[in-house]
Amino acid sequence: STTSKIQRVTLIPGDGIGPEIAESVKKVFSAVKAPIEWETVVVDANTGISKEVIESIKTNKIGLKGPISTPIGTGHQSLNLGLRKTFNLYANVRPCLSVPGHKTRYDDVNTVVIRENTEGEYSGIENQPVKGVAQSIKIITKEASTRIANYAFQYAMANGRKKVTCIHKANIMKQSDGLFVKSCREVSTRYPSVKYEELTIDNNCMQLVLNPAQLDVMVLPNLYGDIVSDLCAGLIGGLGLTPSGNIGDHGTAIFEAVHGTAPDIAGKNLANPTALILSSIMMLRHLGHFYEASLIENAVLNTLSEGKVKTKDLGGQSTCTEYTNELVRKITESL
Amino acid sequence: STTSKIQRVTLIPGDGIGPEIAESVKKVFSAVKAPIEWETVVVDANTGISKEVIESIKTNKIGLKGPISTPIGTGHQSLNLGLRKTFNLYANVRPCLSVPGHKTRYDDVNTVVIRENTEGEYSGIENQPVKGVAQSIKIITKEASTRIANYAFQYAMANGRKKVTCIHKANIMKQSDGLFVKSCREVSTRYPSVKYEELTIDNNCMQLVLNPAQLDVMVLPNLYGDIVSDLCAGLIGGLGLTPSGNIGDHGTAIFEAVHGTAPDIAGKNLANPTALILSSIMMLRHLGHFYEASLIENAVLNTLSEGKVKTKDLGGQSTCTEYTNELVRKITESL
Ligand SMILES: CC(C)[C@H](C(=O)O)[C@@H](O)C(=O)O
Ligand SMILES: CC(C)[C@H](C(=O)O)[C@@H](O)C(=O)O
Repeated sequence: STTSKIQRVTLIPGDGIGPEIAESVKKVFSAVKAPIEWETVVVDANTGISKEVIESIKTNKIGLKGPISTPIGTGHQSLNLGLRKTFNLYANVRPCLSVPGHKTRYDDVNTVVIRENTEGEYSGIENQPVKGVAQSIKIITKEASTRIANYAFQYAMANGRKKVTCIHKANIMKQSDGLFVKSCREVSTRYPSVKYEELTIDNNCMQLVLNPAQLDVMVLPNLYGDIVSDLCAGLIGGLGLTPSGNIGDHGTAIFEAVHGTAPDIAGKNLANPTALILSSIMMLRHLGHFYEASLIENAVLNTLSEGKVKTKDLGGQSTCTEYTNELVRKITESL
Repeated sequence: STTSKIQRVTLIPGDGIGPEIAESVKKVFSAVKAPIEWETVVVDANTGISKEVIESIKTNKIGLKGPISTPIGTGHQSLNLGLRKTFNLYANVRPCLSVPGHKTRYDDVNTVVIRENTEGEYSGIENQPVKGVAQSIKIITKEASTRIANYAFQYAMANGRKKVTCIHKANIMKQSDGLFVKSCREVSTRYPSVKYEELTIDNNCMQLVLNPAQLDVMVLPNLYGDIVSDLCAGLIGGLGLTPSGNIGDHGTAIFEAVHGTAPDIAGKNLANPTALILSSIMMLRHLGHFYEASLIENAVLNTLSEGKVKTKDLGGQSTCTEYTNELVRKITESL
């Protein structure tokens, strides 16, 4: 794809192991000669989400983000959430695919969580009207529910997926989750070629651990999406192996590794860059660079599946650099 | 325990397979000569929770309940929930223990969910202030949180448990879940011999599927308890093998099987009575009948572990009656 226009991408390395794994992404992107130019900006507890960062993402429309830690104590809003909100990135997409080389109790996980990313339990509307009594308000709108449902079905169509399952607790939250289900059900009728089902969140979590192959694309209100995406990550071995993307209107999107900053191993060349690399592959596909995406993806999957070069968190001995170099070697070989 | 006073227990068989599995409990109770007298009452979609039922439970203080189906459509409150609310049964206790005879992906699950049963997301306070905008209010009080935390630690002490983990999403719901965590943390200082930890609900679900042996007793707000108890049930093979109890003040308690009514197999002698039997064992212990409880428990565990006599849902060929008769045979032998 030598004819592609070069796309500038806002890179937020984050803190802890963030800079190391961001370095790894840059190396594999160079190896595939991705038509990407990085604009590195800083978001941390000191800077917050600065004007510069907002301008950068507004201009580039695309971001790639490592983990950012949130200061402990009340009054601090998560910067991860702040970014999702600032750019109205309404769809949080989290695929989970069993990794051949990494053995867990499950070998047939192939799910995609499509999480509503702007409202629900994350409204931030809370108070303590009386001492000792706190209330949090969950907001569900028909507009946002319809938007995420449409996103889920369009994702299913574009990715050859067979089924969308709407996850809810409308037997209890009849109004809020009820509205979410109703919206999904309405949207589903417009996509007759995709199967549509509904499942309560409790039953969904049970079915996922009993037999994850039952589930395909799931569409969920914000908090259930948060829970179920972590559960699915657990099925395949943890957040070190799962990509994610936050998608908004007009192509705006931030892709991110959702694992922590792992301060204990930061700077020691021990980090596993896989989640950020997989996220950057989602980004490449989002930008239409399918060839480069597949080159990197094959290198990652083959390396993990061989199991010779792997980082400590996966039971291996390799450094972040060694793992990255192995990816680069495989990519170069396959060019 | 021939000297025990006879305890009258309100039996709510429920619908679907309810009556069959209730029959099974009655047989094993006869076999161990449990000092229990059953007072059978009906709760279903037609009767609702009648005055007679309320009087019966108020007088007896103890209930055993099969599954009750909730009519489809809006405006119907779950009768299961109705009973928990009517008697202010604030602690929902759901132990999950790997069953030797029933192979799943996990063989080391030994968790107890202590779910706050009266408030949280189940407040029922909801509306649609504007067309297309619904809100549900989650209520967390210091009083109910402190009460359930105390219950969890007292349960841990009484049952030789080492650790209580408070599950929350206080990084997002800083006020409501924040109050829950704060209350648990305060209570924890009064039980220095029990380890205390905190985990967010998303991470908790991931850790449970990665390595359930990490978790012991968990204390959770209502909805997270609903989700996590189903997840744990999934780890050991489903709701057919998990007991539950709803505990209130002054010894009032209703024990129940939380699986569905399974209308498809109702009346066919195919039901698995294990969950209701395990619930009735919890009830016997609650009443101080430890000997009878162990007799039944051993019969159940031995039968499941031998795997010769098992119901269809567990991959066996036996009817509900055959399984029950095998339990009775084992009990009689061991008397
Ligand atoms: C860090 C936290 C606020 C965040 C969330 O709840 O969304 C995280 O769990 C995630 O899944 O990205
Ligand atoms: C039937 C339903 C209302 C109930 C609940 O949400 O509590 C069930 O899921 C349970 O766990 O007992």
